[in-house]
Formats: sequence, C-alpha cells, structure tokens
Amino acid sequence: MENKKKLRKISELGEFGLIDYITKDFNQSKDGLIKGIGDDAAVFETKNKLSVITTDLLVEGVHFNLIYTPLKHLGYKSVVVNLSDLYSMNAVPQYILVSIALSAKFSVEAVEEIYKGIKLACERFGVVLIGGDTTSSLSGLFINITAIGFAEKDKVYYRSGAKKNDLICVSGDLGAAYMGLQILEREKEIFLKDSYIKPDFEGFDYLIERQLKPEPRRDIIHFIEENNIKVNAMIDISDGLSSELLHLCKNSNLGCRVYSEKIPINPQTEAAADKFRIDALTAALNGGEDYELLFTAPIEMKEKLEKHNDISIIGYITEDIAKVLVTPTGSEIELKAQGWNAMSKND
Amino acid sequence: MENKKKLRKISELGEFGLIDYITKDFNQSKDGLIKGIGDDAAVFETKNKLSVITTDLLVEGVHFNLIYTPLKHLGYKSVVVNLSDLYSMNAVPQYILVSIALSAKFSVEAVEEIYKGIKLACERFGVVLIGGDTTSSLSGLFINITAIGFAEKDKVYYRSGAKKNDLICVSGDLGAAYMGLQILEREKEIFLKDSYIKPDFEGFDYLIERQLKPEPRRDIIHFIEENNIKVNAMIDISDGLSSELLHLCKNSNLGCRVYSEKIPINPQTEAAADKFRIDALTAALNGGEDYELLFTAPIEMKEKLEKHNDISIIGYITEDIAKVLVTPTGSEIELKAQGWNAMSKND
Repeated sequence: MENKKKLRKISELGEFGLIDYITKDFNQSKDGLIKGIGDDAAVFETKNKLSVITTDLLVEGVHFNLIYTPLKHLGYKSVVVNLSDLYSMNAVPQYILVSIALSAKFSVEAVEEIYKGIKLACERFGVVLIGGDTTSSLSGLFINITAIGFAEKDKVYYRSGAKKNDLICVSGDLGAAYMGLQILEREKEIFLKDSYIKPDFEGFDYLIERQLKPEPRRDIIHFIEENNIKVNAMIDISDGLSSELLHLCKNSNLGCRVYSEKIPINPQTEAAADKFRIDALTAALNGGEDYELLFTAPIEMKEKLEKHNDISIIGYITEDIAKVLVTPTGSEIELKAQGWNAMSKND
Repeated sequence: MENKKKLRKISELGEFGLIDYITKDFNQSKDGLIKGIGDDAAVFETKNKLSVITTDLLVEGVHFNLIYTPLKHLGYKSVVVNLSDLYSMNAVPQYILVSIALSAKFSVEAVEEIYKGIKLACERFGVVLIGGDTTSSLSGLFINITAIGFAEKDKVYYRSGAKKNDLICVSGDLGAAYMGLQILEREKEIFLKDSYIKPDFEGFDYLIERQLKPEPRRDIIHFIEENNIKVNAMIDISDGLSSELLHLCKNSNLGCRVYSEKIPINPQTEAAADKFRIDALTAALNGGEDYELLFTAPIEMKEKLEKHNDISIIGYITEDIAKVLVTPTGSEIELKAQGWNAMSKND
C-alpha cells in the first residue's frame, strides 16, 4: 500500500457502506445461486449433489503476523485453506461466506487489500462470495471463512475409508511452509532490531511462498478423476503429516507403516533446516500448513499413481493399529502428533 | 461457575482434546446428515430443498461484555441470532458450524458453559452442530456461527418482495433489548465503582432477558404457515426498525408510511426510557438486537394478521420511495437509519 495516499477510516463508510464498497466488484452469479449478498441469508440450490461445508478462523498473532504477511496474501490464504478441506473431501468449491473483525488500526484501503486476495481466490477456484459479517474488534484482525462445495453422492472421500494394504500417498512436498515461517520469523526479529536491514530470503523464495501463499491441490483431485484412480480415504495436511496420518488411521481403525526416506522434502526445505539446525524430517512430519493431500488407494492403483511426478507413495495401511515410521536403517519409531496446534501456541 | 473448583487450562486438553470434550454430548444424527464433526468438512444432502445460509461474528467488548453476560447465555444468543436470519427467510434451521477464538484467560469450564448454551439452542430449534474451528486469540473471545437452513422452493421471503400497498407488520415489541443493554451498562458502571453493591434489575427483568437471551420468532413463522398468510417480504430486526425498514424499502424499490403510535413498545421499555431520559420511540426505531420480524403482506391478509396478539400492523408500503414516519399529531418525519452499527462502535 502506498503511504502517500490518505487512508480512509472504516467509520467513514460504516458497516453497510464498507460491505457495499468491498463487495461491489465480486461476481454474484452462478448456476443454482438464487440470492447472494444483500439479504438476511444467501439462498442456493444443490440439485442432486451433496453439500460439503467447512469453516476456518484465522487470528492475528496466532495464525499470521502482519509484519510479514501482505494483506492480499492473507485474504487469499484464508480462502484456500478452506478450499483445501473441500478438495480433500472430493467436493467442488462453490460458495464462501467471510466474517471479518477489524480493530481501529485498519483503513478502508487495508480491508480492500484483504478482499483483493479473497477475490483472486474466488476467481481462480470458481467460488462466489455469498455472504458474511463485518464488525470491529478491540484489537487484532480475525477472519472466519465458511466454504461450501458440492460432491457427487458416493464419491466423497472420508478420513475413515482407508483399507488394509492401501498405499499411503502424499502430494507435493512437506515441511516447506513451516521452514518458510521460521525464515519469516527470523527476518522479523532482525527487522525489529534494525529496520534498515532488508530481509534476506535469497534461495528460500519457494519456502516463503509456501507459507504466505499456499495452493490447494485441485490439480491432484483432477488427476485422480481423469485417471479413474480409486481413492479410499483422504485428508488435507494442515497440521503436519504425523497428525493427519493419526487422524486417518484412527478414523479407519487401522494402522500404518511409513518410510521416512519416501517422505517428499524440497531441497530448499533441507537447506533451510540445515541452517536452522532443525531436522528436515521433523519439519515434514510436524510442521503445519502444507495444504497437501494425504490419501490412501488400493495397491492396484500403484502404476497409475506413479505416473504423476508430484505424488509420493510413502507407505501402506496395516491391520495392526500401530502407526510406525521406518527409518533408512530399519528402526521403527511410533508416530506421534506434535503438529502445529493453535490452542497451545498462546499459553 | 463455582470458584472453588479447580479450573482447567485449555492447553491441558489441546485443540483436538477440547473439541472432543466439548462436542461429545452433541447429537450428531439428522435425516440427510451424512457426516458431522470429525472430518475435513461436514456432508449433508438437501433433497429437493433450497439451502439458506448465514453467518454472524460476535466480538467481546463490541457485541457483548462478559461482566454481565453469562457464558451460557452468550452461547445461546450466538446461535439464535443466526437462526433469526434463517426464519426471516422462511427457512427451517438445520445445521450450524461454530468457530471460536479464546484468549488464555478462558478455562475449559468456561468453554463448556458457552457450549451448554449452544447445545440448548440446538436442542430447542432442532439444529445439529456439524463442524467448526477452535483456536486461541491474543485477547478476547470471538464466536463466529454459520447456520444453514432449508427452504421450500418459491417459499423464501426476501427483502425485495414488498408490493405497493402491502401492510407493514412487526412481531413482538421493539426497543426492549436496547433498554436492557442500558440497564446492564449502568449496573456495570456502579459495580466497577463498588463491587459490593448488588445490581438492581427490579422491574426490568423483561428488558434484561431481551438483551441477554433473545428468542427467534419461529412461532410467528409457524403462525403464518398455519394460517396461509401470504407474505411478500421479510427481514429480521437486528439493527433497529428504521434501518430494517430502509433495507426492505430499498431492496423493493418502494417507500413506506409508518405510524409511530402503532409501533409496539413494552411498558418496561417505556419505564426504563423514562428513567434514562431516552425517548422510547427512538429506542424502538434505532435500538438493535430485538430479533423480531418485520414483514409485509397484502392488505387482504389484514383480518388473519389481526388474530395474532403479538403482530402489529404499523403502516403500509408506498409507491413513492420516501420512507415516512407519521407522528400522532400528523407530522411527517423522514426515517433515517441511526441503528446500532458494529463498525462505528469502536472508533
């Protein structure tokens, strides 16, 4: 944002004025959408589909730090973390509702930036903003987004659907968003000490992008669909691989054997982990916010899955409910969830 | 809450532990509900109905003050303000998602109290909690609720449906919640000066209840349905009658003539307004949070509407887009929205 331009106070517009101003450029048409913004509630029809719904609350100082998070990225991210949940259920995102609480420090222009990011995500993923709530907070910024998608009956992927001997697959690579956060936090500390030092992200641009602008894996969902790959269970990786594996196994009443050397880690993640004296595998297992997909598929799907460069088969589902990580030397470690936990961050 | 009992820190349970603990007693079954709490998203089917969805964010210090708001009431209210939006669209509430951000001052027991209120509202209105998000905040309590209802096709009430000469009706009485808030604020000030003085709510119990425990007017919706009353437009009164009348007229491209002596005001509201030297009519027009229904109906419905003691006909819709309030002496005042506006409260 330009500092020279006079920034407007939100109170100049008021709640309804702000809503009108912010939402005027948002597309409000979609097949099946009967009423979007502008009534007590939005109205839509689902035809013969199932509705899939999820919600996520992002809190300043807990989920994001405005020192290093551009507001547009924040808006974009707050939408896509929800879309990731819908894709992992095999639903096609349709609508979002955005609730936002802003303290007096935010200008109209700041809110505009957030909504630019929200709009970009809407356009990219074919989603329509159909409602929300805008209010003030005594301190801090809070964004709650609810996303609704439609799914074909009998084609929803649950956490509970894993079968014995299923291959365990992950998309993309893991731990990068966590390492990106470490770099941003380090640069923040340096910046707070001396604001003339420019942040040094050289060689770590991928990690920064993974943290600030995650992309939900719609492409993986499309690949699975186009190649008739049978998927038995799926979950998105928001709290770290360990935590999600445990959810998936627990919900399916089964266990797993996962091979540490099969877990996909980007070279930048390795390099940053080295620099921070963190084990890259630990970052991959327990670092959050990757928004990759973790899924299981019958062993007959192996050949089809291997066709995709960005899908890794990391292990298999076992009847024994133990959740085991096998190291390159063959030792077995019990998987534990030490994932990113928003409740324990602020104690 | 008892002070003697040792209160547990939320961090002892962690996010997933807290969710499990809080939601264990919530009913998770409903015809058409395929997956409730416990996956990346909830899944339900709508059959041949329309989906109606709304969301509301309540912020500590802006929408409620914990000095005088029992947590159970807060939980209840945060649900019913959303249900009120659904009823005003003629939708039957089905599901809610609850996002909550809590600062470290909140114990597990405090969260339990909030969810007791949420559960009571769910049970009373036949709604199932199917998801949400639980996180920490650096300061304050934030509750965002998204509610989904189903409506019959072609039976949704929009703000935009008012017709020329329609009767303008309101349920219940207006201004009571606002006066209740004034009393609570006064007692808070007294309490802050001397915590030995007990609050004096005598004679104002109705106002306090209207503020702390509003009830959505499902009964009015049922009455309309059972008596085959045609309704052309409806909106719930959350920001004061003036503001809602303006929304309704603006969306319908029409105006209104409303008679001040027809606006229903409870004797307690009158008495409290006297005491506070506020004009009771101003409280009714601009005070918020009544959660009554404002609707318009063709003139032929007059007799049917008059059968209900708790419905007042306050005026009619005009082709002329002026929004006019007629006083007992016959003078005409232009209606203006000076309603409760969450954005301007915190400047």
